[in-house]
Amino acid sequence: MADAPQRIEQLIDLMARLPGLGPRSARRAVLLMLKKRGAVMAPLAQVMAEVALTARDCLRCGNIGDADLCAICRDERRATGEVCVVENVADLWAMERGGAFKGRYHVLGGTLSALDAVGPAELRIPLLVERVADEGISEVILALNATVDGQTTAHYIAEVLEGAGVAITSLAQGVPVGGELDYLDDGTIGAALRARRRF
Amino acid sequence: MADAPQRIEQLIDLMARLPGLGPRSARRAVLLMLKKRGAVMAPLAQVMAEVALTARDCLRCGNIGDADLCAICRDERRATGEVCVVENVADLWAMERGGAFKGRYHVLGGTLSALDAVGPAELRIPLLVERVADEGISEVILALNATVDGQTTAHYIAEVLEGAGVAITSLAQGVPVGGELDYLDDGTIGAALRARRRF
Ligand SMILES: [Zn+2]
Ligand SMILES: [Zn+2]
Repeated sequence: MADAPQRIEQLIDLMARLPGLGPRSARRAVLLMLKKRGAVMAPLAQVMAEVALTARDCLRCGNIGDADLCAICRDERRATGEVCVVENVADLWAMERGGAFKGRYHVLGGTLSALDAVGPAELRIPLLVERVADEGISEVILALNATVDGQTTAHYIAEVLEGAGVAITSLAQGVPVGGELDYLDDGTIGAALRARRRF
Repeated sequence: MADAPQRIEQLIDLMARLPGLGPRSARRAVLLMLKKRGAVMAPLAQVMAEVALTARDCLRCGNIGDADLCAICRDERRATGEVCVVENVADLWAMERGGAFKGRYHVLGGTLSALDAVGPAELRIPLLVERVADEGISEVILALNATVDGQTTAHYIAEVLEGAGVAITSLAQGVPVGGELDYLDDGTIGAALRARRRF
């Protein structure tokens, strides 16, 4: 690519680091943007810059928002008694697409993992314990992925919250073994939520 | 995605329009960017904005550059007697990666296509005829894709340039039937260039 101006090469390199894009597809994406500089590239750059500038992690639940508290934590119509614990923001978005859950969330930021040396302190588990004590939460719904690490994490949280006077449930029917929430259709997530069982 | 701030939804929508990215992979790309706002998202937005602002189509050859003439047209070490005709900038980049061609280019901006109603006037063919007359070009190398439309276009250009006193050659050995330049390895492109034949 000796002929592509340096900035364009840089742009291709940066795009190629995004998940799902390799060097070839990054090049194709950049070529399309170059063809549609006004209609695609300029608006994309602007929205991206705005989001980079304004996006913030919600101090309470870990969701992405644009203020100290995210839109869900600010929304007073959301039930405050139920907190749905998810691994990451992608899973929160998947739950929201399902539209079945009317409570609030707690984003762990990952799962416990011996292999990756992720302990409870690396996740937002201590913060969850605080929230249960402070916010009058009556049910914690564990919506963790049906993977080994996800289930290890679920068991750990159930243990930590034992005696806190809160019901602990988990998504059940409909989540395939080894499946990840973000790949499920909305109906499946809704069914799993309705059929949740005590953990 | 009711919970994602509106700008983030907008960003996902824009990303999903890029080739190779659907709604799901756009979401994953945006989530990664959101995680790495300083290291990935902000620099990407900035480089993209700069390119959107500065990129220009070369007035002579149709390549993308940052001035009236692209870096290749400005480069006095490039042979001026040979012009390589390609369909689009992606193919020009593929030729340059091969590194075998030392002349200059002419980017058509597509191929003739009855189906898509693309005639010679929609491409940069009249400009090619002008260049052959004005720039002392001795050889026009047709490096069009080995597709039906690509070859139709090659034949049309050969016809139009008949009697212009210019040798017309085409890439030969190594370009698989139905193959597209942008998918070939560099060695194949080099071999096809060296073995080019009269058209
Ligand atoms: Zn929140
Ligand atoms: Zn040029």
